[in-house]
Amino acid sequence: MKENRVQKVVKEMRARGLSQLIITAPASVFYLTGKWVYPFERMLALYVNDKGETKLYGNRLFVLAGNVDADLVEFDDTDDCVKILADGVAPGIIGIDKAWPAHFLIRLMEARPDVRPVVGSPAVDAARLIKDEEEQRLMRESSRKNDETIEATIRQLSRGMTELEVAKIYLKEAAARGASGPSFEPLVCYGPNCADPHHGSDERTRLKDGDSVILDVGLTWQDYCSDMTRTVFCGEPTDEQKRVYELVRAANAAGRAAVHPGVPVSEVDRAARKVIEDAGYGKYFIHRTGHGIGLEEHEFPDVSATGTAVCTPGMCFSVEPGIYLPGKFGVRVEDLVIVTEDGCDTINAVLRELRVI
Amino acid sequence: MKENRVQKVVKEMRARGLSQLIITAPASVFYLTGKWVYPFERMLALYVNDKGETKLYGNRLFVLAGNVDADLVEFDDTDDCVKILADGVAPGIIGIDKAWPAHFLIRLMEARPDVRPVVGSPAVDAARLIKDEEEQRLMRESSRKNDETIEATIRQLSRGMTELEVAKIYLKEAAARGASGPSFEPLVCYGPNCADPHHGSDERTRLKDGDSVILDVGLTWQDYCSDMTRTVFCGEPTDEQKRVYELVRAANAAGRAAVHPGVPVSEVDRAARKVIEDAGYGKYFIHRTGHGIGLEEHEFPDVSATGTAVCTPGMCFSVEPGIYLPGKFGVRVEDLVIVTEDGCDTINAVLRELRVI
Repeated sequence: MKENRVQKVVKEMRARGLSQLIITAPASVFYLTGKWVYPFERMLALYVNDKGETKLYGNRLFVLAGNVDADLVEFDDTDDCVKILADGVAPGIIGIDKAWPAHFLIRLMEARPDVRPVVGSPAVDAARLIKDEEEQRLMRESSRKNDETIEATIRQLSRGMTELEVAKIYLKEAAARGASGPSFEPLVCYGPNCADPHHGSDERTRLKDGDSVILDVGLTWQDYCSDMTRTVFCGEPTDEQKRVYELVRAANAAGRAAVHPGVPVSEVDRAARKVIEDAGYGKYFIHRTGHGIGLEEHEFPDVSATGTAVCTPGMCFSVEPGIYLPGKFGVRVEDLVIVTEDGCDTINAVLRELRVI
Repeated sequence: MKENRVQKVVKEMRARGLSQLIITAPASVFYLTGKWVYPFERMLALYVNDKGETKLYGNRLFVLAGNVDADLVEFDDTDDCVKILADGVAPGIIGIDKAWPAHFLIRLMEARPDVRPVVGSPAVDAARLIKDEEEQRLMRESSRKNDETIEATIRQLSRGMTELEVAKIYLKEAAARGASGPSFEPLVCYGPNCADPHHGSDERTRLKDGDSVILDVGLTWQDYCSDMTRTVFCGEPTDEQKRVYELVRAANAAGRAAVHPGVPVSEVDRAARKVIEDAGYGKYFIHRTGHGIGLEEHEFPDVSATGTAVCTPGMCFSVEPGIYLPGKFGVRVEDLVIVTEDGCDTINAVLRELRVI
């Protein structure tokens, strides 16, 4: 067990009046044990109580014995695994991982009518929110690899390439740098496709003069995710493209400049959004400004108008404003930041100046 | 709504004393509404009661209005969607989909302390278990496409190809025949890799003389899955390879021959297993004999020693015995069958005779 992380979770449990917790999300179990397990339909559960006692329940097929430093309870497919877990919990309120499949929870309640389930994930999310030194180091390394990879990809862009071809170049360059994989499917789009923030890279659209090119890409390096976006132009951009690009770049800078300990993330969203709204493009910035990131590509918090988290040293999130003009083009500029004692460090170093290929 | 299918579910609910049900699995919602929705973290729920009344709850982002023939309740991200659902259920026992994320269920119980959740999926699984005529037609078509695709793939096998290259040939041939995708990642393995039934196709191992080649592949055709396995040999097989191949082929035939209405699926497992056990290879047949299939690649029932389902006309499942000799080679032969009034139809037509390439 990673004891300092268990203590962080225990502190968050106490702050929420939670005396016991069942953690089942693979990334949270990895965070506390150092071991990834993908249980699919089988049961994996890490029990933690407010004394810092832990017990890991897993199917023998996961081969945990000897492979994880944890107090282990193993079972077979023929065992009533939830009953075994139920026998180990205390009466009263119990925090449950938000995504635990209902049939496990129902069986737990049948076996233990004396426990009352509440959603327990916020205690773990709050601990994972603040990256420790080791995690910050890995987040920086992951983003440095991502910087190198996106640079190598942009250098290979040429007219006539499909979006999917460029996505594959990114994947190849990421693998060549030792990434264990992309942290999400690389998103490459051209021209009018850029106006849909959820357009997937397709194999029909070919790069041509006049296109904006959005590359929204990330990789996984030693379990930690990176995520960045750059927009470049194929051939000389129009005046409107230049104006929109500079606005989005300024919004990205304003968002990052707003990050200071004590500032609610909603203020970060507001700072980025204000630049775009003031120029009359507010209705074309159709998503939140950013999201937390770490072991998973999307983590707590939402950096949005309704986000209630407060910037605290060690938090890592994206700042990614965009402007999407339907039928024409789109621009997004995204960087990851780590909150520091006196502001933030931007952990992506790829230049943001308007770039023409 | 597909009313005849709703009635099948209602019948299964009544048989289980269930007066209401919340269905959330995308395949089950499609089964009853004809509409696929992948809700990711958002809520999708189809409410059914034992009077056959239905109500579909979905986020407005799913764009259900006008796209599905159902009594619809829509909500936004800012709504308390589970509360809206909770307001529509009756007091008492309520069946819950087995995989519904715990946070939804906990919120439902908070909003409605007068309901008692039980696992409700078996009622839907039992309805989906018996394929209606339209479903049987699509299952046959899907397997016919799969037959053609595996034939085209085997014809292209040549020495030096990697497992992954062959997997990609399968995918390309499936797409050329109009499949909407593979029903699972095609599994191609050679020689000693065949001895691990879960070995994924890799890009290192190249086909060479003396190898057994397992191709375990399936595609999706008009929403319905196929799944078959053939084992062929590269160069003249050894006597042991021939003996093992003929045993597995006989076990596959014995399993299929055992399928008759009224026979428990455990008997199908036993019939296939007996052939292999009697020849002294019992300990090398290390998995169940088969699984149900339909809208999903793996459905109820388990065709195993502990499977309690009874063969009934309209059921569709795989018969896929294998022998796995660690460090040497492996053989598996898999076909899908549909139970008929007087036995079963095997819906794969690719020859099972020993084949050398």
